[in-house]
Amino acid sequence: MADTVQTTSAKASRTRTAGGRTRRKQADLPANSGERFLITDVTPEVDAGRYPAKRVVGDWLEVFADIVCDGHVQMAAQLRYREVGAADWQIAPMQFWDNDRWTGRCHLTRNTRYEYTIDAWVDEFATWRRDTLKKLAAGQDVAVDVAEGMAMVEAAGATAEGADRLALSDLQGRVAPLDVAGRAEALLGDATAEVMGRAGARLGLTSYWRTLEVVVDAPQARFAAWYEMFWRSQGTDPDRGATIDECIDRLGYIRDLGFDVVYLVPIHPIGRTNRKGKNNTLRAGPDDPGSPYAIGSEDGGHTAVNPEWGTLADFRRFVRAAADHGLAVALDFAIQCSPDHPWIKQHKDWFRWRPDGSIKFAENPPKKYEDIVNVEFYHPHGDEPIEPLWRELRDVVLFWVEQGVKIFRVDNPHTKSLSFWQWMIRDVQDKHPDTIFLSEAFTRPKLMKGLAKIGFTQSYSYFTWRTGKAELTDYLVELTQGPARDYMRANFFTNTPDINPVILQIGGRPAFLQRIVLAATLSSVYGIYNGYELCEGTPVPGKEEYLNSEKYQYKVWDWDRPGNIKDWVRRLNQIRRENPALHAYDNLKFFNIWNDNLLLYGKMTENRSNNILVAVNLDPFSAHEASFELPLWELGLPDWASVEMEDLFSGNKFTWTGKQQHVWIDNKQPAFVWRMTPL
Amino acid sequence: MADTVQTTSAKASRTRTAGGRTRRKQADLPANSGERFLITDVTPEVDAGRYPAKRVVGDWLEVFADIVCDGHVQMAAQLRYREVGAADWQIAPMQFWDNDRWTGRCHLTRNTRYEYTIDAWVDEFATWRRDTLKKLAAGQDVAVDVAEGMAMVEAAGATAEGADRLALSDLQGRVAPLDVAGRAEALLGDATAEVMGRAGARLGLTSYWRTLEVVVDAPQARFAAWYEMFWRSQGTDPDRGATIDECIDRLGYIRDLGFDVVYLVPIHPIGRTNRKGKNNTLRAGPDDPGSPYAIGSEDGGHTAVNPEWGTLADFRRFVRAAADHGLAVALDFAIQCSPDHPWIKQHKDWFRWRPDGSIKFAENPPKKYEDIVNVEFYHPHGDEPIEPLWRELRDVVLFWVEQGVKIFRVDNPHTKSLSFWQWMIRDVQDKHPDTIFLSEAFTRPKLMKGLAKIGFTQSYSYFTWRTGKAELTDYLVELTQGPARDYMRANFFTNTPDINPVILQIGGRPAFLQRIVLAATLSSVYGIYNGYELCEGTPVPGKEEYLNSEKYQYKVWDWDRPGNIKDWVRRLNQIRRENPALHAYDNLKFFNIWNDNLLLYGKMTENRSNNILVAVNLDPFSAHEASFELPLWELGLPDWASVEMEDLFSGNKFTWTGKQQHVWIDNKQPAFVWRMTPL
Repeated sequence: MADTVQTTSAKASRTRTAGGRTRRKQADLPANSGERFLITDVTPEVDAGRYPAKRVVGDWLEVFADIVCDGHVQMAAQLRYREVGAADWQIAPMQFWDNDRWTGRCHLTRNTRYEYTIDAWVDEFATWRRDTLKKLAAGQDVAVDVAEGMAMVEAAGATAEGADRLALSDLQGRVAPLDVAGRAEALLGDATAEVMGRAGARLGLTSYWRTLEVVVDAPQARFAAWYEMFWRSQGTDPDRGATIDECIDRLGYIRDLGFDVVYLVPIHPIGRTNRKGKNNTLRAGPDDPGSPYAIGSEDGGHTAVNPEWGTLADFRRFVRAAADHGLAVALDFAIQCSPDHPWIKQHKDWFRWRPDGSIKFAENPPKKYEDIVNVEFYHPHGDEPIEPLWRELRDVVLFWVEQGVKIFRVDNPHTKSLSFWQWMIRDVQDKHPDTIFLSEAFTRPKLMKGLAKIGFTQSYSYFTWRTGKAELTDYLVELTQGPARDYMRANFFTNTPDINPVILQIGGRPAFLQRIVLAATLSSVYGIYNGYELCEGTPVPGKEEYLNSEKYQYKVWDWDRPGNIKDWVRRLNQIRRENPALHAYDNLKFFNIWNDNLLLYGKMTENRSNNILVAVNLDPFSAHEASFELPLWELGLPDWASVEMEDLFSGNKFTWTGKQQHVWIDNKQPAFVWRMTPL
Repeated sequence: MADTVQTTSAKASRTRTAGGRTRRKQADLPANSGERFLITDVTPEVDAGRYPAKRVVGDWLEVFADIVCDGHVQMAAQLRYREVGAADWQIAPMQFWDNDRWTGRCHLTRNTRYEYTIDAWVDEFATWRRDTLKKLAAGQDVAVDVAEGMAMVEAAGATAEGADRLALSDLQGRVAPLDVAGRAEALLGDATAEVMGRAGARLGLTSYWRTLEVVVDAPQARFAAWYEMFWRSQGTDPDRGATIDECIDRLGYIRDLGFDVVYLVPIHPIGRTNRKGKNNTLRAGPDDPGSPYAIGSEDGGHTAVNPEWGTLADFRRFVRAAADHGLAVALDFAIQCSPDHPWIKQHKDWFRWRPDGSIKFAENPPKKYEDIVNVEFYHPHGDEPIEPLWRELRDVVLFWVEQGVKIFRVDNPHTKSLSFWQWMIRDVQDKHPDTIFLSEAFTRPKLMKGLAKIGFTQSYSYFTWRTGKAELTDYLVELTQGPARDYMRANFFTNTPDINPVILQIGGRPAFLQRIVLAATLSSVYGIYNGYELCEGTPVPGKEEYLNSEKYQYKVWDWDRPGNIKDWVRRLNQIRRENPALHAYDNLKFFNIWNDNLLLYGKMTENRSNNILVAVNLDPFSAHEASFELPLWELGLPDWASVEMEDLFSGNKFTWTGKQQHVWIDNKQPAFVWRMTPL
């Protein structure tokens, strides 16, 4: 992180201007004595700059700060920024906003890390100009003031460079023969103000005490639709896993539905020892394929491809085929090992061994997970990192980056060293800034947010369990309008192989229609797990697990199964793509609709060129109706204005007039997505 | 401020524990790799620790922090604190609060600065103990676990010291002959847990990245009633100023009214050049005494006593006499100079000279203040401090400290260098930690708060202009419940020589009765300017100035003037003194009362041994009545409970039953202050 305290530069500048004067005894007055400003409450700033803010390429970084100074002076401020590692700073002027708050912006044009800070100073000439204009307006004599202004121009002319130097020299020549009134006019003119704004004395220069960082991610970090593919279930033979070629054949289907990312559960060899059987039974049958999360066998570990699926060359072909369809490939980075993982023999000290000589299996006492062992990030009984392991794990990621993978969904990162993630993600992104890391931490809120702070590009969230109006509203306000908006991007998954949420178990097709609209429009980045589009929701009774889960057995799907919602999904992804308002994350606003079963919200581009309004029936069992407020004020329109409303699912267009409107939403078609256009 | 980043200590501990292992290459993994915790959102913390929090002697400092760690471990945390400059840290354990938030407290027993930070670590043995107990409860075999626990005890025994070492050695001896069940019982017992909590391995030790500071002020910094005395008006002869002896004669009156601090407007010689006349006219008559804020004449400057008033020896006598009455003396520190101030001749470079050779008077163009010149804190056109001036000003304060003055009301600090105040206040308090500086900055809110951050002990506030229910509530919530509560103490003045507020001009005696109750019970520190107790409010028409202000002329008062409110003031100060709930600043709570003219609020001690409820009629022109909620819940009582209510102005006692109550408040007796006692 950027820990540099900026007092040194201010001090240097003071020493520079000290000239022939007696130098201060450093022992007596503090180094910041020349600073006249307090710069506080900077945004964005995550934990006082310990962690970077997040943006994506092409964003404007809008920086705000409270800046106060003693006295009644004309001050100026600037945003100073550069790519991390660049020698030179770039400058953007800051403007007064309101109530001692100032703002400036810079364009984040590259996929890299930037740093930024703020400078403020007293503009001596502008202060003089303001005061002298007031005296002139009051009819006071300004002869002495004009002499003071002349002296400032002379001093500036002596140190200015280039065109400013010429301009100031020219000015001095021009005003020399004039009387006071003539001199005043020239000195107080806009042209002089402009040159002196650059060349005039800057007093009390104060730089913000910290340099802050913003990590500028690839656009897909914020806007993408994910399709989670259980690779071995993509074929047609129920007695074996699908091959990579069968998976490649599925890419057209996924792209046709409008997805951007195809995310594969772990593709590595699966261990045999203590392999899990169907429906998570403790012992596998001889033909059970095992959970892909028990990684590693005699066929290899985290850099190997499951031979039942294909070869590394096949995988590279898969990545290329996906790219041809415009799809990015995401891999699952699950660090745990099966007891047969090659590392266990090669690197005994990466694992914990018990006094009886046995390896320590994963456990959450009294539960045991004997098909998995965890690596140890630190040497026993201390906090010395096992450095070769850290490097190896980093190299695993780099290995797959070299195969063309830039997106990693990280399994359970909250049970591994936080310092490891902080180091690894930064190290990989230093080499490949377009890599994206999605944190799968369904854990306590502050740990979830902590992982986002230390570097994860995206985060799974509690969305899957937020189904009521109040809890959805509260949670989305927290995510998109609270401090987390600057560092955490919630990737809204409707379901996962581990989470078959109750609403999908009981709500049937209406629930599937509803939940994907919420995921795809509340967040800019969302995902489904294959089978969602077929409305699969059969649970292990009383659990959030899928019955006969493909985590533990072979399975084939009928991708055209009756009752599927593929048309809805396809249209929804198309709507997302065509409407820039849905590409942004923190532009969400909720609006009043007078029914607790109905949710109304909007997303608008900053310039209001694209305005989306969404109404969702949260009750899968019944239609509901309600009056609501059409947010005309968001478009700068009066309450009686008319707007064109385009129903983006049906394509129908209407004209609505006035703020008060009414809507009826069937549970069988449980959402409207409208585009609002002023008439 | 305390800028030390605490990663070094954690790094040192890692190197220490590394033992014979291969040492990490520092170049590859970052220094914090061994840290397993994120410690964030610490309170109190002002601007990430750039500025100290404020407390007073005897307070407990309650520290909170969010602390998260990877994995499912048993963690521990401690608050580490010491007086600034002390060699050794003291330790207070932290407890889990809620939702990953931890809390610890330490007692601030001395009037000095403290620093504090937080450590967190994984308690290896406690983690083992928790897991082993779960396994035992599930009937699992724990033989191997017990062996692991034994190894931890052995390792701890080898490094422990003193009693812990003996206890661990004894434990090992006792369990050696036992079977697994016996060993388990001994290892899992509370006694072992306690010793191992101290002596066992601490893994992943992480210290908060910053050391924070709290300045612990003298009790009067938070609790005091001030009486502002215009010294020259305390006599009986309208043609001359009062003498110090006449002022000494007034101390009994002031103490009888219950005040703690007598604050004197500037006591120094007053300049003659451009002296202001009666009612702020531009030229004084020959007998006009001039504004005491035009400081300095041939009789001396900031360390001299106005000879019309007395001598320095007399002043020391005044201070002693005040002390005999239990009164502290506060002086006005107004840095501006009259054109006759000795500094102008002695230190030409402390002032700004114009091209025509004239001195630069104070001005706010087009307004000119030709009876005053300001010192310059920096050399012209740069940011090099005029160090001799800074030291001289500091020494002025130290001079008066030596005369027995510990409280300084600082005039217009927002027009002087902020860095100067930060340095000067800290420097003086390093020598005299019981000095108190009150900032008179009626300026923009963020600059006002900034002055509090950089060191002012107390601040004037907008209270004088907050008269309505909503604005009083909003402002007090901001002051006592927002971030400012940790660094800003608002001293609520009802009026000042410069502020004759409209409500006092038009509201008459009811307004005076009302406003002093608000000041004295909303804040723990408040003040009045002499004449308030006589209900003096005659304005210069259309202005907030007093007519015939004693700022510019001689004046005598009839301190027993009819209509005075001295009984009310005396009783109010007595109520304050007798009720500890009114000694605290940020314990204010507003309660529902269903009338916009009535304000209801309470202050309670933390242990609820003293509970004050205040109801004020904000309308000086009319009586009002309303139903209200008696805050029984604050005392832990049910809504139907009965409490004893003592009307502290009348002394009457009542029993009230139930949450719903009703009150009628006359404007002529516009406030009730009740003490609530559970029956």
